Amino acid sequence: MTAQLWCFGESGNAYKAALTMELAGYDWSPVYVDFFNGASRTPEFRALNEMGEIPVFREGDLTLTQSAVIQLHIAEKTGRFQGSDRNEVLRWIMFDNHKLSAQVGTARFLMNFVPHDKRPQSVIDYLLGRLKPVYKTLESHLEGRDWVADNAPTIADFACCSYLYYPEPFGFDRAEWPNIDRWLEAISALPGWKHPYDLMPGNPSDRAVKEDT
Amino acid sequence: MTAQLWCFGESGNAYKAALTMELAGYDWSPVYVDFFNGASRTPEFRALNEMGEIPVFREGDLTLTQSAVIQLHIAEKTGRFQGSDRNEVLRWIMFDNHKLSAQVGTARFLMNFVPHDKRPQSVIDYLLGRLKPVYKTLESHLEGRDWVADNAPTIADFACCSYLYYPEPFGFDRAEWPNIDRWLEAISALPGWKHPYDLMPGNPSDRAVKEDT
Repeated sequence: MTAQLWCFGESGNAYKAALTMELAGYDWSPVYVDFFNGASRTPEFRALNEMGEIPVFREGDLTLTQSAVIQLHIAEKTGRFQGSDRNEVLRWIMFDNHKLSAQVGTARFLMNFVPHDKRPQSVIDYLLGRLKPVYKTLESHLEGRDWVADNAPTIADFACCSYLYYPEPFGFDRAEWPNIDRWLEAISALPGWKHPYDLMPGNPSDRAVKEDT
Repeated sequence: MTAQLWCFGESGNAYKAALTMELAGYDWSPVYVDFFNGASRTPEFRALNEMGEIPVFREGDLTLTQSAVIQLHIAEKTGRFQGSDRNEVLRWIMFDNHKLSAQVGTARFLMNFVPHDKRPQSVIDYLLGRLKPVYKTLESHLEGRDWVADNAPTIADFACCSYLYYPEPFGFDRAEWPNIDRWLEAISALPGWKHPYDLMPGNPSDRAVKEDT
């Protein structure tokens, strides 16, 4: 049975689930959510996920939301990328979710996907200031290590990396963080790795074309 | 063996772990972290938790960080508050961590614990605006339900409620959210429940006294 993932290319949170499935060789297909035209704010989407968030995973009767829950489900079902210590894997997923992705995702959204005249610069500056120590924690942690939570890649790597491959500016420059840069290279060298814009439907250039025509 | 929890009264994230232990009848004692005087930014604290965050749990050789990891550990070890569906419990913990607590905690900090002339009003307004739909999601979810993730209290309840008992203003008024209000009443009626300022050392009135003298 092919699993379905409601997602869109710009969503780093969806990428965590999609990348885990892709690298684990899971049978899945994407269902495009036209987020930028309000598709996640409809009653139909709310019926699918009362939290109104992407991604949503469905496989037969099973519906899961929250990327971490989907990642754990795939890892447990396939035996891939679980790591040797559930607590260590989960604590980096938690760190990613509340400290890294939550703030990177918001900063990138405000800096790129909001009309120029509606970008709240003081909020952006605040988020970018709070993100520096987060990158620093990750950079220090990766000193002398290949992977975030084990001596092999785990779902914690696929959570923490999720927003860091995007090309739009969000105050992050790989060249400033050599350990993070090396680690991102290593993840993208894994067999089957794909960039979020190649793995999931939708990306900013689609919209640029649409808005131009 | 008595477990130790590095914590302080104002930390809703520490409260999630402390409340779970207290209600589960776990043998634990608090280790006060003087957060407001920089105790979590010292090299000693970084050696304990490289993420620089509170809470930290230690029991013999085992050190755990991230409230969700500590909550799961206690629930699994005691068989209390696990719920019948790990995925459902975890998805509400994830929702709390990245959408609710992360933003409530920041808004409350900026509105109360930063000197008046350094409070970034535009950032506060932004966070309060983003929190309304989060409260709305929780309010809707609790319609016709007693508990967040099962038909009995689980660690998901103790995560989602964590910041909502604090008396300082952070843009949340229980009277506006009747289902949340009823649910907070039910949690605080559980045997052994304590308010964060009664469960953990340190609260704003201590500091007020100290600053006055």
